[in-house]
Amino acid sequence: MSEPALAQGGDAEALYGLVSELYPICRSLTGDGVRRTLAALRRFAPLEIHEVPSGTRVLDWTVPDEWNLRDAWIADAAGRRVVDARRSNLHVVSYSEPVRRRVPREELLRHVHSLPEHPDWIPYRTSYYARSWGFCATQRQRDALVEPEYEVCIDSSLAPGSLTYGELFLPGTSPEEILVTTHVCHPSLCNDNLSGIAVAALLAGELWGRPRRRGLRLLWIPGTIGSLAWLARNPQAVARVRGGLTLNCLGDGAPFTYKRSFRGDAEVDRVAAHALRRQGLPHRVVDFSPWGYDERQFESPGFRLGVGSLMRSRHGSFPAYHTSADDLSFVSGERLAESLDAVREILRILDANAAYQSLSPHGEPQLGRRGLYRALGGDGDPQAVQLAMLWLLSLSDGDADLVGVAERSGLDFDLVARAARLLVDHGLLAELRPAEEEGR
Amino acid sequence: MSEPALAQGGDAEALYGLVSELYPICRSLTGDGVRRTLAALRRFAPLEIHEVPSGTRVLDWTVPDEWNLRDAWIADAAGRRVVDARRSNLHVVSYSEPVRRRVPREELLRHVHSLPEHPDWIPYRTSYYARSWGFCATQRQRDALVEPEYEVCIDSSLAPGSLTYGELFLPGTSPEEILVTTHVCHPSLCNDNLSGIAVAALLAGELWGRPRRRGLRLLWIPGTIGSLAWLARNPQAVARVRGGLTLNCLGDGAPFTYKRSFRGDAEVDRVAAHALRRQGLPHRVVDFSPWGYDERQFESPGFRLGVGSLMRSRHGSFPAYHTSADDLSFVSGERLAESLDAVREILRILDANAAYQSLSPHGEPQLGRRGLYRALGGDGDPQAVQLAMLWLLSLSDGDADLVGVAERSGLDFDLVARAARLLVDHGLLAELRPAEEEGR
Amino acid sequence: MSEPALAQGGDAEALYGLVSELYPICRSLTGDGVRRTLAALRRFAPLEIHEVPSGTRVLDWTVPDEWNLRDAWIADAAGRRVVDARRSNLHVVSYSEPVRRRVPREELLRHVHSLPEHPDWIPYRTSYYARSWGFCATQRQRDALVEPEYEVCIDSSLAPGSLTYGELFLPGTSPEEILVTTHVCHPSLCNDNLSGIAVAALLAGELWGRPRRRGLRLLWIPGTIGSLAWLARNPQAVARVRGGLTLNCLGDGAPFTYKRSFRGDAEVDRVAAHALRRQGLPHRVVDFSPWGYDERQFESPGFRLGVGSLMRSRHGSFPAYHTSADDLSFVSGERLAESLDAVREILRILDANAAYQSLSPHGEPQLGRRGLYRALGGDGDPQAVQLAMLWLLSLSDGDADLVGVAERSGLDFDLVARAARLLVDHGLLAELRPAEEEGR
Repeated sequence: MSEPALAQGGDAEALYGLVSELYPICRSLTGDGVRRTLAALRRFAPLEIHEVPSGTRVLDWTVPDEWNLRDAWIADAAGRRVVDARRSNLHVVSYSEPVRRRVPREELLRHVHSLPEHPDWIPYRTSYYARSWGFCATQRQRDALVEPEYEVCIDSSLAPGSLTYGELFLPGTSPEEILVTTHVCHPSLCNDNLSGIAVAALLAGELWGRPRRRGLRLLWIPGTIGSLAWLARNPQAVARVRGGLTLNCLGDGAPFTYKRSFRGDAEVDRVAAHALRRQGLPHRVVDFSPWGYDERQFESPGFRLGVGSLMRSRHGSFPAYHTSADDLSFVSGERLAESLDAVREILRILDANAAYQSLSPHGEPQLGRRGLYRALGGDGDPQAVQLAMLWLLSLSDGDADLVGVAERSGLDFDLVARAARLLVDHGLLAELRPAEEEGR
Repeated sequence: MSEPALAQGGDAEALYGLVSELYPICRSLTGDGVRRTLAALRRFAPLEIHEVPSGTRVLDWTVPDEWNLRDAWIADAAGRRVVDARRSNLHVVSYSEPVRRRVPREELLRHVHSLPEHPDWIPYRTSYYARSWGFCATQRQRDALVEPEYEVCIDSSLAPGSLTYGELFLPGTSPEEILVTTHVCHPSLCNDNLSGIAVAALLAGELWGRPRRRGLRLLWIPGTIGSLAWLARNPQAVARVRGGLTLNCLGDGAPFTYKRSFRGDAEVDRVAAHALRRQGLPHRVVDFSPWGYDERQFESPGFRLGVGSLMRSRHGSFPAYHTSADDLSFVSGERLAESLDAVREILRILDANAAYQSLSPHGEPQLGRRGLYRALGGDGDPQAVQLAMLWLLSLSDGDADLVGVAERSGLDFDLVARAARLLVDHGLLAELRPAEEEGR
Repeated sequence: MSEPALAQGGDAEALYGLVSELYPICRSLTGDGVRRTLAALRRFAPLEIHEVPSGTRVLDWTVPDEWNLRDAWIADAAGRRVVDARRSNLHVVSYSEPVRRRVPREELLRHVHSLPEHPDWIPYRTSYYARSWGFCATQRQRDALVEPEYEVCIDSSLAPGSLTYGELFLPGTSPEEILVTTHVCHPSLCNDNLSGIAVAALLAGELWGRPRRRGLRLLWIPGTIGSLAWLARNPQAVARVRGGLTLNCLGDGAPFTYKRSFRGDAEVDRVAAHALRRQGLPHRVVDFSPWGYDERQFESPGFRLGVGSLMRSRHGSFPAYHTSADDLSFVSGERLAESLDAVREILRILDANAAYQSLSPHGEPQLGRRGLYRALGGDGDPQAVQLAMLWLLSLSDGDADLVGVAERSGLDFDLVARAARLLVDHGLLAELRPAEEEGR
């Protein structure tokens, strides 16, 4: 553990630096903000940028027009900008249609959202699929709108264009794939979800070009419509997915929350719980609910891909959620680096996890003859690796994978994995290949 | 809840009045007591009266001769009636054969049952299937039998006739049926089971003529032989039963006891537990046992209809059980009315409960486009009905019904049911019809 | 229970006597020590002695050469035997090859095993499958080896011969078999495993010639290679095994430990837990692990015979394990007799346990008509045997056996078994024969 620990200083700095760099960009479901964000990520790994034209049907949905914002403000009679999107891109409701006119105070107030209980915070609001316009302001700003009339300007474009997402596929020796996704549609909000974007980017950087067993597919996608677009366009990849993880809210100070897949006992559920416990990271495991991030789509009845979700604070459960308080002071490099460590370990175990079949199932095979067992008998305790071999031979009837063996035996995953390699090398165990496993 | 609450005063009065009216009647397994009881119930709803001739084979049993009692007494040398069935029809062992003769004290005592531990109570005893005669008396009465000889008279008839039971079928739009039964064979005992008889009668009165989804079949039957007779004579209705409830001991002051069906996870088990919890009624849930009321027959290995049992005090577990202490002071109108409420709610939910299949299982369907979702995004909490729709869409792969969705989501049943109607109306969910459900 | 209790004094004496008699014999995996031990057991029952020639392939293993020891010692310059196998046959590493020469102290020490933390105990060590030689000594003896050179002698033979094991089959009326095995390969160690050998011998003596339902096969076998040899040579008997028990470490003062079969819910697992609870014996139940005695072989993926293990102290978990401290003072006749009682009861219930099918599954059959039910009704509690009949009729849909009925109903096993016989006698229940059960 000492090497990753040493590296963590570097991780923390790199992660926080990336979050800081991307913070000012005005992202939305579509538009140049997402494109600029994905372009920045390409310095970590060569992710592919996809453009899905507006109007494209994706499952039950249709890709909306593309939205871009140039400027937005509310000006008083004296021409002073009392609300100004140049100060925070949260000030404009995402997907606001263009508007430029004088508006009576009462009408304007219906278009200005604020948070009475947090008078200095700006809320984050969207109107992706219903045409309207609106501003978000602090409660103090809203209370100061006392003049009878204001001039409002939203200089946006909402027109056919495309939806943009990033994808990186790291091939493995097996046809199976693990899916890791993170949403890129939120504007200047750090925990939700520059944290996920940054963790996925550094992960991509360090795994790129490294040998793997199972393919790893990383997606940086706009929420909901992005995952639906990917699912609609990639039926063959979908069929190869054996589980995955959505990454969200990974920079704040709370312990980890792992949210299970729909079935609750998918491979990723067992692996994530094992990995978090193994690392000694404070965490809780919660059941699936159809409210959250893109796991909602991956776990819908027609897919059920076995995708869980890793978070620190859970969406909607912390006061700063979807407000301007989710800023650069709300996250830290140390927490981001710890999250990267956790994801790394989950993916490492997911990649190493495999199921085996004993090739010598009738009685225990003679390990001693193969040099796998101590010569001197009678001593109370076998060596741990010998015990791991016995557990593997006992459980390898096609039902248990390495994580299952580690959990049932109470032995360490890496020890069990090492014992499995020894047994495979000596012709006593055979890995069940995906097709065979499916047949189970 | 205010309307039922207002109505409760009326329910309490009506239920207690009916119990009081039926209390003096001498009911038994067969005979005019049952006929008079069922006739009285017909003022609530037009129940059908069935007569099954003595000697009819019903499954492993045979309908016994019909028993009627005119008079019964024990008289001393002076001709005074020291035990007299005119004072309580519990005084004679049910199904006693006729007898009129002088009997030496020692012989008589072998025919007089009493309760030493409750010297003022008369026990309730029967001898349906073995010919004999007997009296039940208080311990004080029995102790007072000191003369050397007494005259005994049981003026009964035990001869071919028929078994009588009442039936009311309330049709639904679905071929499925729910069975609600209550035993009518006990003489002057209020909790066991004039309470069940009265609750079922008022229920029949209020549900008669009302639209329903699933058929509801109410049976007022003599215990054991009555349910066996109905099962034997109605194979087609039996095949349509999707669960049910026996109603017993619903007037005393104890909290509710719900006894599960044999399998323990039948629809009625989940619904009853949900309904009692939803109403905030103190209750406990106990496992099935083959000792109790007619659920024993409905849950026998050849039927397993999914029938539970609702009680307050459990049969055999309260001192007044099967004694003269189970009288009009042992039950109250308020408790009877509360029981009616509980049964009403269980049946309401059973009637509304259905399983659905998502018609848009690949990803979440776009609720916003259909006006089912708020236009403005970003706010932390969705409306409850929206959350209910998401849960329904997530769980509706053919395995979950509305109660299951309510239980897993923690949402209210009615909210979930309302959300399901919205989704059906918008073509997103289809109800699984019984035939399809069976295929599961 | 009074008769077995009276008999226990005799059991205790007989068991302790047998352990004492066999204690001095130098047993090993093969050789005359095993033969002398098995010969002594033949005075309890006519067990068959098998000899499997060295070099015979048994599954993945090969029967090794036969080992016999005549003498072994370490002598100092003065010719004094400082370590002498005549004092304890633990002094020589089992399967040591012959050696006779002068050895420099440093080289000798590499061949002398001791227990620094227990300076007065001799460890027990083996080298069955790797040719070498060695001594076991107390730490004090080893520390006293200060001279520059010693003479060592191990007068052993290690040459083609055979592996010896004992077998006793007690036939039943059913083709099914129960397997009870105990290992006979350990030299002068009382708890591990003269206790198991003795308990199995007395059991054989008392069950020999008695009528049984299921066959009982008792094996006294050398650990691992012995069970593998039996498994390899008896495929037809293996196919008839319906569960079993290995007996080990049954003489010490600890409460019982029952170790479950691989699946954890095999018949023997339910029976053993029920029997120990029924007898009120302090015990704990632990999960299967592939570390222990011959259950490892019987429960390997290719067999999974449903074999558990009964112990007091668990192997490897008590300080005296595999040391000279596991001597005649470590075990007691009382504990051995209590163990015999426990095994007796487990086997008695295993033999009596059967699954039944109700022949009158539609409603309850009329027990009264058959004289199986009290004539007088109304009383609160049925007789226990009547309740047992109702439970049997309710559960006998082919899924529950007598132990299952006893567990679910909370009734005593023998009461349930008696009720089952009554129902069978009256044509209401039919025993499921093994072939039918298999079809389940």
